[in-house]
Amino acid sequence: MPSVDFLFPADPTTRALARALHGHTSAMPIVSPHGHVDPGLLSANEPIDDIARELVTRNHYILRMLYSAGVPLESLGVAPIDGGDFERDGRAIWSTLAKHYHLFRATPSKLWFDHTLENVFGIDEPLNESTADAIYDAATKLLHADEYRPRALLDRFGIEFLATTEGALDPLTHHGAMAADGMYGRVVPTFRPDDVIDPDRSDFAHNLEELGELTGENTRSWDGYLRALRARRSTFIAAGATASDHGHPTALTADLSPTDAEALFGRITNSERSVEDSELFRAQMLTEMATMSTEDGLVMQLHAGSWRNHNRQLAGRFGPDMGADIPTSISYVGPLKAILDRHGNNPSLTLIVYTLDESTYSRELAPLAGHYPALKLGPPWWFHDSPEGIRRFRQLTTETAGFANTVGFNDDARSLLTIPARHDLVRRIDAGFLAGMIVDGRLSEDDAFELAEDLAHGLARDAFRVGTRP
Amino acid sequence: MPSVDFLFPADPTTRALARALHGHTSAMPIVSPHGHVDPGLLSANEPIDDIARELVTRNHYILRMLYSAGVPLESLGVAPIDGGDFERDGRAIWSTLAKHYHLFRATPSKLWFDHTLENVFGIDEPLNESTADAIYDAATKLLHADEYRPRALLDRFGIEFLATTEGALDPLTHHGAMAADGMYGRVVPTFRPDDVIDPDRSDFAHNLEELGELTGENTRSWDGYLRALRARRSTFIAAGATASDHGHPTALTADLSPTDAEALFGRITNSERSVEDSELFRAQMLTEMATMSTEDGLVMQLHAGSWRNHNRQLAGRFGPDMGADIPTSISYVGPLKAILDRHGNNPSLTLIVYTLDESTYSRELAPLAGHYPALKLGPPWWFHDSPEGIRRFRQLTTETAGFANTVGFNDDARSLLTIPARHDLVRRIDAGFLAGMIVDGRLSEDDAFELAEDLAHGLARDAFRVGTRP
Amino acid sequence: MPSVDFLFPADPTTRALARALHGHTSAMPIVSPHGHVDPGLLSANEPIDDIARELVTRNHYILRMLYSAGVPLESLGVAPIDGGDFERDGRAIWSTLAKHYHLFRATPSKLWFDHTLENVFGIDEPLNESTADAIYDAATKLLHADEYRPRALLDRFGIEFLATTEGALDPLTHHGAMAADGMYGRVVPTFRPDDVIDPDRSDFAHNLEELGELTGENTRSWDGYLRALRARRSTFIAAGATASDHGHPTALTADLSPTDAEALFGRITNSERSVEDSELFRAQMLTEMATMSTEDGLVMQLHAGSWRNHNRQLAGRFGPDMGADIPTSISYVGPLKAILDRHGNNPSLTLIVYTLDESTYSRELAPLAGHYPALKLGPPWWFHDSPEGIRRFRQLTTETAGFANTVGFNDDARSLLTIPARHDLVRRIDAGFLAGMIVDGRLSEDDAFELAEDLAHGLARDAFRVGTRP
Repeated sequence: MPSVDFLFPADPTTRALARALHGHTSAMPIVSPHGHVDPGLLSANEPIDDIARELVTRNHYILRMLYSAGVPLESLGVAPIDGGDFERDGRAIWSTLAKHYHLFRATPSKLWFDHTLENVFGIDEPLNESTADAIYDAATKLLHADEYRPRALLDRFGIEFLATTEGALDPLTHHGAMAADGMYGRVVPTFRPDDVIDPDRSDFAHNLEELGELTGENTRSWDGYLRALRARRSTFIAAGATASDHGHPTALTADLSPTDAEALFGRITNSERSVEDSELFRAQMLTEMATMSTEDGLVMQLHAGSWRNHNRQLAGRFGPDMGADIPTSISYVGPLKAILDRHGNNPSLTLIVYTLDESTYSRELAPLAGHYPALKLGPPWWFHDSPEGIRRFRQLTTETAGFANTVGFNDDARSLLTIPARHDLVRRIDAGFLAGMIVDGRLSEDDAFELAEDLAHGLARDAFRVGTRP
Repeated sequence: MPSVDFLFPADPTTRALARALHGHTSAMPIVSPHGHVDPGLLSANEPIDDIARELVTRNHYILRMLYSAGVPLESLGVAPIDGGDFERDGRAIWSTLAKHYHLFRATPSKLWFDHTLENVFGIDEPLNESTADAIYDAATKLLHADEYRPRALLDRFGIEFLATTEGALDPLTHHGAMAADGMYGRVVPTFRPDDVIDPDRSDFAHNLEELGELTGENTRSWDGYLRALRARRSTFIAAGATASDHGHPTALTADLSPTDAEALFGRITNSERSVEDSELFRAQMLTEMATMSTEDGLVMQLHAGSWRNHNRQLAGRFGPDMGADIPTSISYVGPLKAILDRHGNNPSLTLIVYTLDESTYSRELAPLAGHYPALKLGPPWWFHDSPEGIRRFRQLTTETAGFANTVGFNDDARSLLTIPARHDLVRRIDAGFLAGMIVDGRLSEDDAFELAEDLAHGLARDAFRVGTRP
Repeated sequence: MPSVDFLFPADPTTRALARALHGHTSAMPIVSPHGHVDPGLLSANEPIDDIARELVTRNHYILRMLYSAGVPLESLGVAPIDGGDFERDGRAIWSTLAKHYHLFRATPSKLWFDHTLENVFGIDEPLNESTADAIYDAATKLLHADEYRPRALLDRFGIEFLATTEGALDPLTHHGAMAADGMYGRVVPTFRPDDVIDPDRSDFAHNLEELGELTGENTRSWDGYLRALRARRSTFIAAGATASDHGHPTALTADLSPTDAEALFGRITNSERSVEDSELFRAQMLTEMATMSTEDGLVMQLHAGSWRNHNRQLAGRFGPDMGADIPTSISYVGPLKAILDRHGNNPSLTLIVYTLDESTYSRELAPLAGHYPALKLGPPWWFHDSPEGIRRFRQLTTETAGFANTVGFNDDARSLLTIPARHDLVRRIDAGFLAGMIVDGRLSEDDAFELAEDLAHGLARDAFRVGTRP
């Protein structure tokens, strides 16, 4: 595993068509327009230091499953905030994973992991307690070879575009250094301003100050704050950014009058804000961001509906992003009305919406994306970036939104090493989906081959304006 | 395409059974108990004037997808309210569709469209920019032949019952004329009184006045208003109606005391109403309608959960029903309690509920329909009247509600031309669903053939009381 | 039917693998950790008196479907509360079922029923009006044979563990008698204290008094009430119980300070409670129960989200549990936060959550169970314990929660006779699910066979601590 027919439908006729479709797309270049690879890694181009820390410690999917089985995060290399002890030995971390690897049977985590071991490292024996050491040694040795340095992998993987994610205050040093090396437009930052937009963050006031210093604007005033954001967007664009990203608890948007918006900003910055003020401010800022996007061309992404750090104890001990984020029920139809009333009919704006609540696919997001020129439907995200999840996404959205209102695939990867596995997985599932529609007469073969190319490459490239300078 | 095996499952054994089941139902007569064909068309029996205006301009599915790709509605023949310019040339509209026809790949719109071109017009070459003119010419020529006049199509399509949809104030002139031509009981109106029941409509007060004039009742009084509604129902029944239809934002029902209902009506008609009053009035009127149904035998339909005209700009420019209605999250269990407490145990009432929120299929509607004698589950509606949507409907409702608590199929069509395509599509999907249950031993072949007949014909005929005089 | 390939996927390769997997598990012993078999039946070991009363009158699935078709419950042997007349003749009840048996086509009720007739009674002719009498006679005759006595069936069915369900005040007489017969640890009670926890029950005050008498505690005081609950838990554990069960309208939990909890208990018991107080009290008591579970080792089950006795008329005439319970939309992420903040990280606690709202599988419950050590995901419950329902459960939860965060199967049966059918059905669906994952390369054959054992037996045995003494 992965065999040539990995993830294809069982029916032989359908399977043969899926194989042909996948054969057509499997070597196409990778557009990775949304993810969390460390740009410092690519800038320095030093070897990835340890396979276990790279694929286990930094992998929230793996952490959460092991934690659910009672494995302490410390034993997986996660450092407690308070300086408490934790496992520093990659081999030991790897061994702990191997011991519990049966927990991952039938999960996408295992499919990605095995795919990566086989296709990146050429290791096809199953990981378990008796093979753990040998696999660890083999992978470690390869990782320190020159052809496994990050930029070599970028080439070998056929990644033509890789967007990383940065806060509004990020100095973009690494992207600057890469631009100087001729990588401008290939590895680019994404403008993620939650740090200066979400008043509920404990560092919000401090971030606003820093935003003022960075831009020379008075961020205690509404106008100065907006000018400062415009300035940061320009800096990101100059570094190659084609998109912004916004992670909000809900999808609420607002379109206040300038006077009301200014008054709200006053309450927000004077710490007199209510809970409703914070929510309204985030809502208003989404619309402000969209307005700026109509000016500067950044594609706008909205990720909503995750209850971050649901596990109070765990967040207290290890900080955020340890696999304890839980999706919640969410609605889009009412909450997005303000931004859509203002900008939804503008075909030059691209607003990409992601969800963790699959009940909204057919009920809300496909109908919205199938109507509003500005709105596009983001790919299945996070828990749903999986064989069953991707299939449900296609089944629940295609009939109402079509393919052209979707934007291809996001791997959302934290590790460069897993990017090919994630793209191959989705290309295989899509090949099977299209093959099924040829077999039952819903698609012609010609159309299916064209669509396979779009889904694998064209839609992401176009939606994220790859190769353009906004 | 559509080939003999169009939409059938891939597995050869299952496919052969699906083919046999579909062979058994494909020539059965069509009962079309809910739709929006223009009765004037059938009454006048003049040729349908233009294929593009008929299948594009009046087709909200097509309008919404093209609009989402930035195609202006004006170029599709839609007239702006303010008298602004729009495309009047059918050939140009047709050409715009052809140019963007790739957007519809894998959507039900394309399946219906291609099916109609092939089976109604005998055109099986694919629609694209180079074939557009020839197809337009061929279809236009046929449309003006006598055998394509509306009543000839009604016969040729095997439509034994067609219900159109009319507001409470409709004079029913066309239905009267058809009755005089011997079509009584075949093409019938449906009583859709939203215009005199929804206080949030801008024309509500005016409609109440007109209702009074039409019926000779004092519609400023609660009793007079109810008498007027009874009178209109009688008039509809006399014209052949067997059903009423109610399109409400939510499924809320109420069962107020007569005194409270009268007081509420007073607030409603004196324009002192609150938002809650409007909602409560619609809720109360559903129960009043059910009460009248127990008296006069009209089958009652409730369509709820659509945010009508979500796109403010578009509604302002073109008016309602332009493809900008978006489903919302909805609940039925609490909201329907009042009407069910009052009438739910009455097996002589038929209340058919439709939803756009598929999460309610297995959670709420199948359990409700599988228990209350009065409640039936309407077919998949609107965005869900599609291969995947129909399949989900069967998978999510059959085990709890059985087939007998469902009511066959509604095409909801605006154009007579598309009715055969829509019924053939659902018969094919149902054949595949039943075939799958033979193959895995859940149904005997005999039972499956009987059920195929029920789903294609018997359930709709019985639920809508076709051929009875209420 | 059920043939050897009953419920297996259609594709021949997948089917052959499913057959092999099912062959591996079909004879494994049955763990039935949650159900409603009458312990008196097993204690007395007298013959089941009538096949119709056993399989029709006490079967809420059958009652609800027949009632939805207008069949009066009286004709099915259900006694009205007011002493009104009802059918007492088993043969007549059986005949009414046979007459309407076509309503059940494609429902799990029919699959279980036919499976039971064939595999328990050796009757494989289809039930209908002409066969009804003969089948009734044959089954009745067998029921009165010694090898159909309840304990003989327990052995013949291979049931190694059977948990029944008892209120907190239950004297556990039958379980005591069985223990004396050497059945301790095989047929065990489950502690279901809703009767002394839900203030909205009309018998709540009376039950508290009885709880005090049973335990010698002053249940008018908060401390005495908690001590009394601890005492009852001990008594249940002594009778073999390994689990508690909690049926609440919502999943709300709370973690009040001792002072606030005591004050709330004061309001609850002084009948000054508000609606919010009742909800908060139930919420607080879930956390109290979890705390006690960390002390005494009872596995805790939470069933939430059913609107009990939705049909007012029916409940008034026949009392509760007549097939008129309807699921509602529910959330878990916020409501469970209090109990998870307090106990969620404790791997020695097992909290099993069930849902009737399938939209929560992938959105909330799989992510929660895939993270918190204490939380496990219960099997598909009630309306979802069906071929399509079980398949959806696996498809929607496995990728995020894995298999190890689930707990095998609960039959929830009211009749001993149906237990083998229900377990065979789920083993077949799981075999097909695992087979599909072998065919598309997601599972190795070895892993699939191991998992098949886990799903059929090991997970339930371990999660419910079968064979342990808490």
